[in-house]
Amino acid sequence: MMGYPESIVNLKESFQKLPGIGEKSAERLAFSVIDMELEDVEIFKEALDSVKKNIKNCEVCNHITEKDICDICSDKNRDNNTICVVDDPKNVIMFEKLGVYNGKYFVLSGLISPLDKIGPEDINIQKLMNLIKKEEINEVILAIRPTIEGETTSLYITKMLEELNKNKKKKTQISKIAQGIPIGVDMEYIDSLTLETALQNRKEIS
Amino acid sequence: MMGYPESIVNLKESFQKLPGIGEKSAERLAFSVIDMELEDVEIFKEALDSVKKNIKNCEVCNHITEKDICDICSDKNRDNNTICVVDDPKNVIMFEKLGVYNGKYFVLSGLISPLDKIGPEDINIQKLMNLIKKEEINEVILAIRPTIEGETTSLYITKMLEELNKNKKKKTQISKIAQGIPIGVDMEYIDSLTLETALQNRKEIS
Repeated sequence: MMGYPESIVNLKESFQKLPGIGEKSAERLAFSVIDMELEDVEIFKEALDSVKKNIKNCEVCNHITEKDICDICSDKNRDNNTICVVDDPKNVIMFEKLGVYNGKYFVLSGLISPLDKIGPEDINIQKLMNLIKKEEINEVILAIRPTIEGETTSLYITKMLEELNKNKKKKTQISKIAQGIPIGVDMEYIDSLTLETALQNRKEIS
Repeated sequence: MMGYPESIVNLKESFQKLPGIGEKSAERLAFSVIDMELEDVEIFKEALDSVKKNIKNCEVCNHITEKDICDICSDKNRDNNTICVVDDPKNVIMFEKLGVYNGKYFVLSGLISPLDKIGPEDINIQKLMNLIKKEEINEVILAIRPTIEGETTSLYITKMLEELNKNKKKKTQISKIAQGIPIGVDMEYIDSLTLETALQNRKEIS
C-alpha cells in the first residue's frame, strides 16, 4: 500500500500534537497547506517562531508578554491598589475586553490540585503574597474558575490573605466574583449546583 | 484595553487561515504553542516548509508526490491496464488503505462546475484521455464523488471515452463504483435519493 508523501505525514503529526486536533482534522489541515500561498506559510512559520521565542511571563504579574514587565503592570494610569487574581492569561484579556476594570492583575500558573501533586508553591502564590505585602493593596478580587481545584485555590489564598491582614493597619478587602445564573439563559438548562449557589447568593432588591 | 502580545495575535491569524479553524480555536491553538517543546515547534516549521516546497503533482496521474512520478505510477508490479479516476488525492490513499485495488489511478484537479466557471479543460481531463489513448487500457473505473458536479464530470468523461472507443479495436470498459446503501447503517437514516438509487441498482442474488 502506498501512503501519503513523507512531508504530509510529518505535518499531519505536527498538527496532531495540537490540542483538540484529531487524526482526520490533522489530515485536512496538512492538505490545506499544499494550496496555501508560500508567503502565508512563511508568515505562519515566523509566527510559530516568535510565539515560542518572544512570549514570556511578566516579572510582576505572570501575565504573558513580550517585555520583562507587561503593558498592564507598566501602565501608570491604572489603579495600583486593586489586584484581580486569575488562573489563565486568557482571562486577563477577557476582563480587558470588558473594559470596566482598571486595576492590576495577577495570573496564577495553575490551580492547587493534590491529586496531580500541584501545591501552592507550584502556582506562584508566594509571589502574589509578596506583591500584596509590598504594596498598599486595598482590594484583592478572586476571579478563579469555579471548579474544585479553583475553589480550593481561592480558599487557600483567602486564608493566606487573612493571615497577612492580621499584621496590617489598613486591612486588604478580599472579594470574589459573583456566582449565579448567567444572563439570558433558559433556567431549565442551569445545573442544580449553580442554581443552589444563585439562591444562596440572592440579593435584596427592594 | 490591553490585548494579546503581537506574536500571539499573528499566530492566531495564521491558524485562522486554516480551514475549519474559527477565532476561538485559533486562540486556543496559538496559546498551546507557548507550552510546546522548542524542538516540536522546529519540527512543525520544517514540516510546513517541506509540504509547501516538496509536494507536487505526479506528471502521469496528478497524485500528490515528492518525486516527478509518484510511487504508484512508477510501481512495476501494478496493473497498468486499469485506471481508477478520483477527484481528490485523499481518495487514492483511501483505496490504497483498502489494499484490494492493484491498478493505477488518475486524480482530477477538481470537478466540472459551470456555476463556478470550471470546465473540463480546468480539471485535466485531456491529460486523462491522452493517458487512455496512449496505453492499452482495459478498464476505466470512475470513483468520483456522487455530487451534481461529480455526476456531471463522470458523465462527461464517459462520453469522451465512448468517443475514444469508436476508434479502438479493443474497447476500453467503462465502469463506475456502485452506489447504494452503506453497509451497517440503519435504513431509516438513508436519504430517499440513495434509497432510490439502491433500488434501481438492485442485484439478483438467486
